[in-house]
Amino acid sequence: MEKRVKGISSSCVTISDPFWSQMQKKVIDVVIPFQEKVLNDEVPGVEKSHAIENFRIAAGLSEGEFYGMVFQDSDVAKWLEGVAYSLIVKPDAELEKRADAIIEIIEKAQQPDGYLDTYFIIKEPEHRWQNLHECHELYCAGHMMEAAAAYYDATGKDKLLHVTERLADAIISRFGSEEGKEHGIPGHQEVEIGLMKLYHTTGKEKYKNMARYFLEERGKNPDYFYQEKVKRGWQHWGQYSLDKLDVTYNQAHQTIYEQKEAVGHAVRALYMYTAMADLAGTDGDERLYGACRTLWDNIVGKKLYITGGLGGNSEGEAFSVNYELPNDMAYAETCASIAMVFFAHHMLEMDMDGAYADIIEKELYNSTISGMQLDGEKYFYVNPLECEPSVSGKLFGYRHALPVRPGWYACACCPPNLIRLVTSLGKYCFSESDSTIYSHLMIGQKAEMEKADITIKTRYPWEGEAVYGVTPKTEQEFTLAIHIPYYVDFEKQEAYLTVNGEKLDVQSLMKKGYVYIKRQWKAGDQVILHFPMEVRRAYANEHVREDAGCVALLRGPVVYCFEGVDNDGLLQSLRIPKDLKAVPELCEDGVLKGNVLLKIEGVRMIGSGELYSEEPPVKERAILTAIPYYAWANRGENQMRVWMLEES
Amino acid sequence: MEKRVKGISSSCVTISDPFWSQMQKKVIDVVIPFQEKVLNDEVPGVEKSHAIENFRIAAGLSEGEFYGMVFQDSDVAKWLEGVAYSLIVKPDAELEKRADAIIEIIEKAQQPDGYLDTYFIIKEPEHRWQNLHECHELYCAGHMMEAAAAYYDATGKDKLLHVTERLADAIISRFGSEEGKEHGIPGHQEVEIGLMKLYHTTGKEKYKNMARYFLEERGKNPDYFYQEKVKRGWQHWGQYSLDKLDVTYNQAHQTIYEQKEAVGHAVRALYMYTAMADLAGTDGDERLYGACRTLWDNIVGKKLYITGGLGGNSEGEAFSVNYELPNDMAYAETCASIAMVFFAHHMLEMDMDGAYADIIEKELYNSTISGMQLDGEKYFYVNPLECEPSVSGKLFGYRHALPVRPGWYACACCPPNLIRLVTSLGKYCFSESDSTIYSHLMIGQKAEMEKADITIKTRYPWEGEAVYGVTPKTEQEFTLAIHIPYYVDFEKQEAYLTVNGEKLDVQSLMKKGYVYIKRQWKAGDQVILHFPMEVRRAYANEHVREDAGCVALLRGPVVYCFEGVDNDGLLQSLRIPKDLKAVPELCEDGVLKGNVLLKIEGVRMIGSGELYSEEPPVKERAILTAIPYYAWANRGENQMRVWMLEES
Repeated sequence: MEKRVKGISSSCVTISDPFWSQMQKKVIDVVIPFQEKVLNDEVPGVEKSHAIENFRIAAGLSEGEFYGMVFQDSDVAKWLEGVAYSLIVKPDAELEKRADAIIEIIEKAQQPDGYLDTYFIIKEPEHRWQNLHECHELYCAGHMMEAAAAYYDATGKDKLLHVTERLADAIISRFGSEEGKEHGIPGHQEVEIGLMKLYHTTGKEKYKNMARYFLEERGKNPDYFYQEKVKRGWQHWGQYSLDKLDVTYNQAHQTIYEQKEAVGHAVRALYMYTAMADLAGTDGDERLYGACRTLWDNIVGKKLYITGGLGGNSEGEAFSVNYELPNDMAYAETCASIAMVFFAHHMLEMDMDGAYADIIEKELYNSTISGMQLDGEKYFYVNPLECEPSVSGKLFGYRHALPVRPGWYACACCPPNLIRLVTSLGKYCFSESDSTIYSHLMIGQKAEMEKADITIKTRYPWEGEAVYGVTPKTEQEFTLAIHIPYYVDFEKQEAYLTVNGEKLDVQSLMKKGYVYIKRQWKAGDQVILHFPMEVRRAYANEHVREDAGCVALLRGPVVYCFEGVDNDGLLQSLRIPKDLKAVPELCEDGVLKGNVLLKIEGVRMIGSGELYSEEPPVKERAILTAIPYYAWANRGENQMRVWMLEES
Repeated sequence: MEKRVKGISSSCVTISDPFWSQMQKKVIDVVIPFQEKVLNDEVPGVEKSHAIENFRIAAGLSEGEFYGMVFQDSDVAKWLEGVAYSLIVKPDAELEKRADAIIEIIEKAQQPDGYLDTYFIIKEPEHRWQNLHECHELYCAGHMMEAAAAYYDATGKDKLLHVTERLADAIISRFGSEEGKEHGIPGHQEVEIGLMKLYHTTGKEKYKNMARYFLEERGKNPDYFYQEKVKRGWQHWGQYSLDKLDVTYNQAHQTIYEQKEAVGHAVRALYMYTAMADLAGTDGDERLYGACRTLWDNIVGKKLYITGGLGGNSEGEAFSVNYELPNDMAYAETCASIAMVFFAHHMLEMDMDGAYADIIEKELYNSTISGMQLDGEKYFYVNPLECEPSVSGKLFGYRHALPVRPGWYACACCPPNLIRLVTSLGKYCFSESDSTIYSHLMIGQKAEMEKADITIKTRYPWEGEAVYGVTPKTEQEFTLAIHIPYYVDFEKQEAYLTVNGEKLDVQSLMKKGYVYIKRQWKAGDQVILHFPMEVRRAYANEHVREDAGCVALLRGPVVYCFEGVDNDGLLQSLRIPKDLKAVPELCEDGVLKGNVLLKIEGVRMIGSGELYSEEPPVKERAILTAIPYYAWANRGENQMRVWMLEES
């Protein structure tokens, strides 16, 4: 592990980017207000949320019964976190006032001992902390801590921070490895992330120590949840039984140091890895870093969809076995891809390796934002790489993989997760060490770093150029390290990097995916990174059954897909020639306006019409159209494929 | 529809065939005695059957409680039917005595009013005939009728026949379209087949009329089962609820004349189509024939696996939507393929079209016998076309598709169904009309027809030659019509048909897949059909997503597959060249001894080892081995594929 270089606060960055500014605008103008209405039960046709009303009832401000999931509180927390980041991007005094009001209610709902979970406060006060396996009190606590840290960061207001400190203190007083404490662990990891954020915001070691406790206690006793169940004698979901539990599902089967393979519920896993990586970096803990690296390598080497999707097994929304990456049955939850950004970002802090930034790019431009309809109004939880409308969302095995985004769900995890990712995008753009400013992403912006203000102008991901303007705040020499995407090859391509118009010898300045430019920077210095945006073909490892014989197309970080609506149906009858001729074309109207599409000279195979024929199908030339994967399913139900058969 | 030409009784044929005689030997020597032991609860480690004991208790010969499925009686019936056909193939006085004894118990169990179902006699006498939807009294009755007809055919003994006549009379007196009768239909079709067999054996019209009633009543009131449920107020499976029922599952959603697509549980559907086709042929009913033909065309044109498997949706063991034929998730139940033989055989009786005989061949050599381990000791219910041991039988979506045959099931449908198919094989070989003897299958045998004794000598399916010896019983001219498999092309191939050494002009004698040889036959006349057995490539319709880019190999009627054990693992990395060079090779030892394997000059694609690479994989030459599909999974858990990618 290298010396840790922490990421920056999103408040240091003002995004001004043709691609991302409109994404931020969508989540701020459409998704946040919509979710606020949902939380207040003001949207007809959407299942009642009751989440804010639950807090009111718990606070004694309203009368009534708890309603919703046992983890309903987390919806409010996630919304508050999104609001916090959005206030940085776009200040909104009215919104802030409404958020403040909700925080006041939350504060009033908190119990004198620091406890905070409206389900148990209202409904089953005698059952507090007895069902960590199913009841998600720690999960909700974690989200509230994340919200509190973000809200403090954005507004300087510390009311929620203090609420969550009291909550964290209550947790610390109850759980731990010490004699007399309960050796508990959460059924759904998340509190570990929350505690780390509380530590980063307050500087109080006890929160970091508690995060370490939860991480290191996990798997020490694989029967913990079972013993908890036997002891309490009741169950939240389904009927009480003495059946054994599958604790690979929530990664409690082994200690974090023993786990060599990413298994179980993908979001639980990735939240855990995120906290592990944050803690490893924070403490400079080599052993923990090694554990992170082992799991990272397993994911990136054997369990990641080319779109950045994670989770090949819809049962348990889980990682499947190595190399089992079904396209039409993928789970690939939006939240898992978002969590992969968190994980990658912490890994990058420990090891300034462009491979991590490349994965962040892959996630950002593909299977995170594919979760949102282009108008911001509907959402996918599941992001398959193939869709057949007669099957997807309908038949056994495929019910989870809907052909179009269905709108708001009762269990609202993915949309608010997208809000917080998109509004906090700034924090993934730069890191700064004593000597170096690292630029990870080509996103148009104005960034205020310690050593310099930096502007980036770019039309990435559609064009391969970024113009960096550097205005140093110091006369000292320092290094600007710019991440070069893995697919840019200065040896083979007409790519260049200039400083004030002079080409640099990139090869000699490149280390693990970053070009290090060390100089005495002067106001007005301009760096231009330029590379051709070629359409690239990717092939999957031959262990991946589902992609055998197929090719996927990429341009820059964008993975492309084919939809039936552009290609006259039957995508499986199309073939991509080995000698690929693909022309990028800016889409100038319709719902895909502004996206670069690909026009490809392809082939269509036409058979005899019989179910089986002993005559090979005949080939017909066809002009094919590919669109960015993230933009699929915006034109009604139709077929979609990422992996296309290569011509034979 | 042509004038119906009924099939013959299996007692007219003595199979003497290198391929089929050993299959018959296996089911007679291994499967029948094993099932007898199971029925008598004499096999340790196999779930208790109790099926014969249930009859003893119902007969008052024993004391105790009913045990088993509500349709446990059908296991006894199916075994008796298999025994009947086996006694024709291989007389066995001791076995016959034991079967007689069981029939005596059955007779004693029958109630004075003709009712016969041990579950309700012993356990819930007050609930008789109230739950046709779930409780399968009519299903069990149908199997008992089939057993009775076969046993009478084989032994001339009519005790069971009389039992089932009384049972049928009880059914007729209760159900029907007449005023005062219950307008009932069975939840699982089968009684229709049984009633038709009872009619064919006894000549009594009332049984045929009752079969017609059950077929034509079906779907007239799609809510029948729901109304039955509401009326009775209890449920056999699961908790009583007022939920609506999915009656496409058991084909009760429309009348048989309105149904245009094969839907729902494949075995239920195919049993129904079988009875429809039998009735259509028996009555010369053009409208009913049209209904059969519509469903046949849908299956053969859109819903049939190349192996003959039926049922692309494991949920409900059902037909999937058109062209949805997943290979690794196939259900393709052994029983469904067996039922397809029944259906095809009745269709052939109405229309002497080789296409029906071709489907019978496809079923016989592929997805029926794939249900049985080569040693006869274990069975598949599910016959997938692709197996990946890390996934098949283990993961969600694939649990039903086991990688090896697991032995006897608690619900014993497929093994006894295989017994009756293989032991009654003779009846599918010939038909005889006033003018013509039709030979449908190239199976070595001695057949006694009305007009002639005919012997066939052949090493089919491994060699493309059959030698017919004709010994006429009449001096009249008559026609011998020989089915020519669809893949034999006398114009293109070195194929010939000779009579006593003289080549015939086949083209002029051919009509719908049969060569009609009309002459005054003399004792000692010899017909030789000869054709080259080429390895053929088949391509699926481009609507079939799962087979796109792939080719399947066939030789004669045998569909081939590739197993990992022969091909150094990773079948999806192999490619079949377009310019196929495949050499047949007789396997001379090991468990596959006697089978013709294929050695193919193929290609293996080797990638970079990374999960995704932008370099195309490199090709390496490889000698590949294909084995007959039916013989897969006889050498332990390993990968298997029928559809292989073609080289690109």
